[in-house]
Amino acid sequence: MKQSLTIIKVGGKIVEEPATLSRLLEDFSALPGLKILVHGGGRSATAVAARLGVETRMVDGRRVTDAEMLRVVTMVYGGLVNKNIVAGLQAHGVNALGVTGADMNLLLSDRRPVKDVDYGFVGDVKAVDTDGFERLLGMGVVPVVAPLTHDGRGSLLNTNADTMAGETAKALASRYDVTLVYCFERPGVLTDEADDASVVSHLTPELYVRLKADGTVSGGMIPKLDNAFAALAGGVKKVVITCASAIADPDAGTAVTVAN
Amino acid sequence: MKQSLTIIKVGGKIVEEPATLSRLLEDFSALPGLKILVHGGGRSATAVAARLGVETRMVDGRRVTDAEMLRVVTMVYGGLVNKNIVAGLQAHGVNALGVTGADMNLLLSDRRPVKDVDYGFVGDVKAVDTDGFERLLGMGVVPVVAPLTHDGRGSLLNTNADTMAGETAKALASRYDVTLVYCFERPGVLTDEADDASVVSHLTPELYVRLKADGTVSGGMIPKLDNAFAALAGGVKKVVITCASAIADPDAGTAVTVAN
Repeated sequence: MKQSLTIIKVGGKIVEEPATLSRLLEDFSALPGLKILVHGGGRSATAVAARLGVETRMVDGRRVTDAEMLRVVTMVYGGLVNKNIVAGLQAHGVNALGVTGADMNLLLSDRRPVKDVDYGFVGDVKAVDTDGFERLLGMGVVPVVAPLTHDGRGSLLNTNADTMAGETAKALASRYDVTLVYCFERPGVLTDEADDASVVSHLTPELYVRLKADGTVSGGMIPKLDNAFAALAGGVKKVVITCASAIADPDAGTAVTVAN
Repeated sequence: MKQSLTIIKVGGKIVEEPATLSRLLEDFSALPGLKILVHGGGRSATAVAARLGVETRMVDGRRVTDAEMLRVVTMVYGGLVNKNIVAGLQAHGVNALGVTGADMNLLLSDRRPVKDVDYGFVGDVKAVDTDGFERLLGMGVVPVVAPLTHDGRGSLLNTNADTMAGETAKALASRYDVTLVYCFERPGVLTDEADDASVVSHLTPELYVRLKADGTVSGGMIPKLDNAFAALAGGVKKVVITCASAIADPDAGTAVTVAN
């Protein structure tokens, strides 16, 4: 039987505010078993960029990353956000290790080709070093992954944290029973945006098609759910969409499933 | 017989300029055997702080680190400088892993007590996790250490890179034959500041006392050499003071020795 592994992805907002970060550190520390935390940090990057006089440009929700912006996200994601989470988890007795995809070559990317938009130093994950993750997890280490990868030729690449979590989950599904948890501000996929109680408890592919067609699911939730279904297709055992304050509750949020 | 381990400490100036960094990455990659790189980054921290409107205040060559400055050094040391070195080493086939002392709890510090000066969030190393370093080195990983530690209670602490290199070398001396190399801008300890050829090839404690007394050795070189002799006293096999461009040359620089 394979060991269980939980991969939690938390958005920038949660790790950037002291109160929500503190709660997250506590809940994440209490999670039993092998675990990996993948975090964002976009809001801090935008704030630091503004203070440095570097303009933030987003296209379809993705950050255009020129050389200056790459420096900013390297500082903010790889340094400020990542290392504060690591120090916080260590204070809770979790043997955290902050990494980017460049560290131990854990996540290698191709720079995104220029089509309609030149996103600059943005990477699409092409390889996950499952051996590296397995050795770290086997040592009792809890990887804390910042949303940066590298191209193997010396350049860091800004990389979407949801995708990094999904790709890592799929790659590790051959070795572990992986549960992938996407945390955001709301308690799950909602049928009524205005009502936090309207959580869809089980989302099947059929229901997803219907909710997309009638506009219930839209915007940033679509790539998130596409990632979720892709992870399931790639062997991940369970994908959950929930809010950060509920990661300790196994029944909270929306369970994305392939079966009915 | 113990395995050999080389610990190289390089100052900020070397890792912050593309040309010298590129040369260092090449030379460091070519070094045989187990190795650890410890780096600074003070100049970049000062530059980023200035752009952010954060004032840099130094007392006796040490950075006063209030909460704002701690954010800056966390970004610059833990993110910008560290991750660019890691990506660069990976491009040279070195399986680098960037760490601070908080990562895997590798270096734990006490916040420096306030005497004449309140240095703020500055740490003095009190424990090095030799098991953690040994497990990483045993996996073929090359740790790249940023000058930050933590207090074990959730706070990162700005920490002198020379001291971190020295403490790590001493702690690992029980497991490895450690050579500690301090790199700076000059080719070694000089008897004539104006003449790069006047390198003292072997510095004994007796000669050190004499060179301090007559003023040949002064300023920032004194704590560096104090660290060097302390490392030897702590079991480190060899300490060398040299310039970064000479790390591949075993005979370059000043060998600090306890014997005549």
